Amino acid sequence: MSSIDNLAQLFMKFPGIGTRQAKRFVYFLLAQDPYFVESLAREIAELNKSIAQCESCFRFYPRTGVTNLCSTCAEDADNTTLLVIEKDPDFDTVKRSGSYTGRYFVLGGTIPVLERDPSSKIRIRELLARIERGAVDGLSEVILALSANPEGDFTREYVAKTLTPLAEKFSISITTLGRGLSTGTELEYSDSDTLKHALKNRG
Amino acid sequence: MSSIDNLAQLFMKFPGIGTRQAKRFVYFLLAQDPYFVESLAREIAELNKSIAQCESCFRFYPRTGVTNLCSTCAEDADNTTLLVIEKDPDFDTVKRSGSYTGRYFVLGGTIPVLERDPSSKIRIRELLARIERGAVDGLSEVILALSANPEGDFTREYVAKTLTPLAEKFSISITTLGRGLSTGTELEYSDSDTLKHALKNRG
Repeated sequence: MSSIDNLAQLFMKFPGIGTRQAKRFVYFLLAQDPYFVESLAREIAELNKSIAQCESCFRFYPRTGVTNLCSTCAEDADNTTLLVIEKDPDFDTVKRSGSYTGRYFVLGGTIPVLERDPSSKIRIRELLARIERGAVDGLSEVILALSANPEGDFTREYVAKTLTPLAEKFSISITTLGRGLSTGTELEYSDSDTLKHALKNRG
Repeated sequence: MSSIDNLAQLFMKFPGIGTRQAKRFVYFLLAQDPYFVESLAREIAELNKSIAQCESCFRFYPRTGVTNLCSTCAEDADNTTLLVIEKDPDFDTVKRSGSYTGRYFVLGGTIPVLERDPSSKIRIRELLARIERGAVDGLSEVILALSANPEGDFTREYVAKTLTPLAEKFSISITTLGRGLSTGTELEYSDSDTLKHALKNRG
């Protein structure tokens, strides 16, 4: 096997990349100037050296040296709420919105609806431990901020059920993001499930 | 800017990759085991060392050492025909079909319909030089095997027009791939352009 095929096989492991696009990536790299290719190889090789995973929220952050916590977990913030999100990019979205000032926890994925071993797909044990630690610090609400789709719904139900005994023990409430019309939605084009939630959550 | 953003910006240069997918690639790499990431960085860094571009047909091939020609250009084949293809993967497709035994030339792309400087998008000068060399060796036909879409049509017209003086000088004919129904096509669902060609090329 040539190194074209070797590299294509590695690219095929990337999310959403099939055989054809993997090959296209390799030919694209072959056509680039050597400086670009060198930079890419170096950035990939050094990614793990400069990026660490936060011990508290599990998101990836630029390593700073002294602490094992990301800048957000290290700063003096509201300890009463914990926002559970699916993946790293969701953190940026929430942070940018400026509408949340509490703590974060990255669940690391969602659970496929037919999954037999749900706990293998997400950081549920780590979340339980985080809540137990949080309870000492005044945690009073866990917000499950997962996707509004079947997989997100299934994951939310599983997480809520698993957290319930611990939440009851420490009187912590488990909430979810409100459902309804997204800003910019025209009523004419909204699906019936969205409409159902919008009617239920009317204010 | 963190190395997450740095690497995401490099991935955004990849064909068909936008901001979101570039970031997803970085988080995917952060979640992989170090062995995978190291292999990827190494394969990318060494790609150019093990792969060369053929001096005659311009396709990329595993470097073998002695010659600057790929295995297909180096072998003893039919010198009378030259098949002009758009890109490297097209070579594999033709080769696999087993229906062509002559020489190849990789044009390196197609020309966008509104392009002002068509010669900058494809290897037209290299093709002219190749044909001139080929004429000495008995080249009698150049087959333009480009895509059957507007950009392919535009490129084919441009290439045919540019080659004409040279082709006439050496009595080389310029042909294109036949157009008609693809195998498996149902007449009911074929577009009118395909049908037009199929009727014209009936046999």
